[in-house]
Amino acid sequence: MIQLSLIGIGTGNPDHVTLAGVKALQAADLILLPRKGEGKSDLVDLRRLLCRELLGREASGRESLNDMQRPRVVEFDLPERDNNTDYLAAVDDWHAAIADVWGELMGTWLPRGGRVAMLIWGDPSLYDSSLRIAGRLGEGGRQRQVEVKVVPGITSLQVLTAEHRIPLNALAEPVQITTGRRLRERGWPTDAASVAVMLDRGGAFETLPSEGIHIWWGAYLGMDKQCLIQGPLSEVGAAILQQRAALREQHGWIMDTYLLARRSY
Amino acid sequence: MIQLSLIGIGTGNPDHVTLAGVKALQAADLILLPRKGEGKSDLVDLRRLLCRELLGREASGRESLNDMQRPRVVEFDLPERDNNTDYLAAVDDWHAAIADVWGELMGTWLPRGGRVAMLIWGDPSLYDSSLRIAGRLGEGGRQRQVEVKVVPGITSLQVLTAEHRIPLNALAEPVQITTGRRLRERGWPTDAASVAVMLDRGGAFETLPSEGIHIWWGAYLGMDKQCLIQGPLSEVGAAILQQRAALREQHGWIMDTYLLARRSY
Ligand SMILES: C[S@@+](CC[C@H](N)C(=O)[O-])C[C@H]1O[C@@H](n2cnc3c(N)ncnc32)[C@H](O)[C@@H]1O
Ligand SMILES: C[S@@+](CC[C@H](N)C(=O)[O-])C[C@H]1O[C@@H](n2cnc3c(N)ncnc32)[C@H](O)[C@@H]1O
Repeated sequence: MIQLSLIGIGTGNPDHVTLAGVKALQAADLILLPRKGEGKSDLVDLRRLLCRELLGREASGRESLNDMQRPRVVEFDLPERDNNTDYLAAVDDWHAAIADVWGELMGTWLPRGGRVAMLIWGDPSLYDSSLRIAGRLGEGGRQRQVEVKVVPGITSLQVLTAEHRIPLNALAEPVQITTGRRLRERGWPTDAASVAVMLDRGGAFETLPSEGIHIWWGAYLGMDKQCLIQGPLSEVGAAILQQRAALREQHGWIMDTYLLARRSY
Repeated sequence: MIQLSLIGIGTGNPDHVTLAGVKALQAADLILLPRKGEGKSDLVDLRRLLCRELLGREASGRESLNDMQRPRVVEFDLPERDNNTDYLAAVDDWHAAIADVWGELMGTWLPRGGRVAMLIWGDPSLYDSSLRIAGRLGEGGRQRQVEVKVVPGITSLQVLTAEHRIPLNALAEPVQITTGRRLRERGWPTDAASVAVMLDRGGAFETLPSEGIHIWWGAYLGMDKQCLIQGPLSEVGAAILQQRAALREQHGWIMDTYLLARRSY
């Protein structure tokens, strides 16, 4: 029997890990660390750093674990997604391929079962597929008995609002969380006073009428290179796109998110 | 000069506090604890417990703070909101009254400035007014120079999704976060595959067509008395309302939230 913990680790600031996250990490027998091919080696380094810090004495405050107690950390290469076929079909195949890799690793390192932990960026509930992948461990040829546990973590949206010192929603009003692609395709969602946008490859807000909208934007939230811009979209929209391109060039990758509202809070 | 930290503490599970939350709490000179009049003394007790635990050795792992270093914890009574007038006007007056109380307490206990911390339920960004109240400390007769810092915390929605082991959004789809009142008034938001509902006094989902909707419900999330129900709305809707009434009767208060989706994930 495998117990799999999906641990939300926040988005770059090691202090955003919860006490429950630290405990779950320390209690694991095996920690699986994906290496991503996307030139985002920063993010792999950050996960390694987090493991080192949280399994050692300093951040957790526990006695240092000795080598026998310490979880084994195993890195693995994520399968690549096929970008040439239909999006949903490609994602489905990709999830199946990842579930195969997870299953193999669990079989290799924990043949008699045990506790596996995975460090999930932000919170496992938000635009993340690990729960869907975990759900496939019991399927087909894999047939693994896996009990899944989720440890919540701070999302990038929460770091965005914390750093800008704003609420996500206007008083008693709804907020929609959506993707850049969706915003481009459908425009401003009908029933929401505020809209939070994730997974935007850049500038989906350009498709909106820029008058009467305020934007709070953040890149590399929680990290040393964090960058924030806010203001009326009509005034700062172009500057954000410029800054985004420059930062992406400089660091080789970027992750950013933003909140839009019909008026400044 | 006052530095005010609004610290998200999660929704009942002390382990959901982040390392940054623990540090901010320990670094404070003054911690302000509101006493609420709503018969929710459980919640006041929980905040007291959290202070005790996190300022002591156990949970934080730091050396115990001695009495000189330990923040002063001051409890205060929250002003009552006038429920007889227009909602937005009443809220506005209420926020002003709370800002007055905060200002007075800061003046009394930190006449020469210092670090004030407040424990915010869940995350300060989500249906919470402390940021709006803090924004009024500089207004009118108050004239306080206050620098606000936000420490993100785990929201009730994240505990809901973690405990049910589900994502908030369907793959690449948007999610709307809204209130019970709004759901009653407007029905299912046009552009969202999933809807998370907070601040519902009970049964706003009854106004929806119950066929084809799945619900994941949770009460007292993160606490010992946590209760979860999930299933097709047509099958479990009535049971949820029954359970809600019984729990409310038993404990004297209830807080619950739920996620609705067009299909099971
Ligand atoms: C696949 S989603 C994962 C979100 C994650 N589970 C969370 O809770 O934030 C990736 C998207 O999250 C946002 N994001 C994640 N980390 C970020 C960061 N450090 N700064 C800004 N945006 C970030 C970006 O919009 C990015 O496209
Ligand atoms: C004023 S809002 C505050 C939300 C909080 N800031 C957060 O991040 O969750 C209160 C609403 O949050 C939800 N809520 C808060 N704590 C909860 C808990 N422990 N269990 C279930 N729902 C909770 C309920 O919908 C409640 O009506």
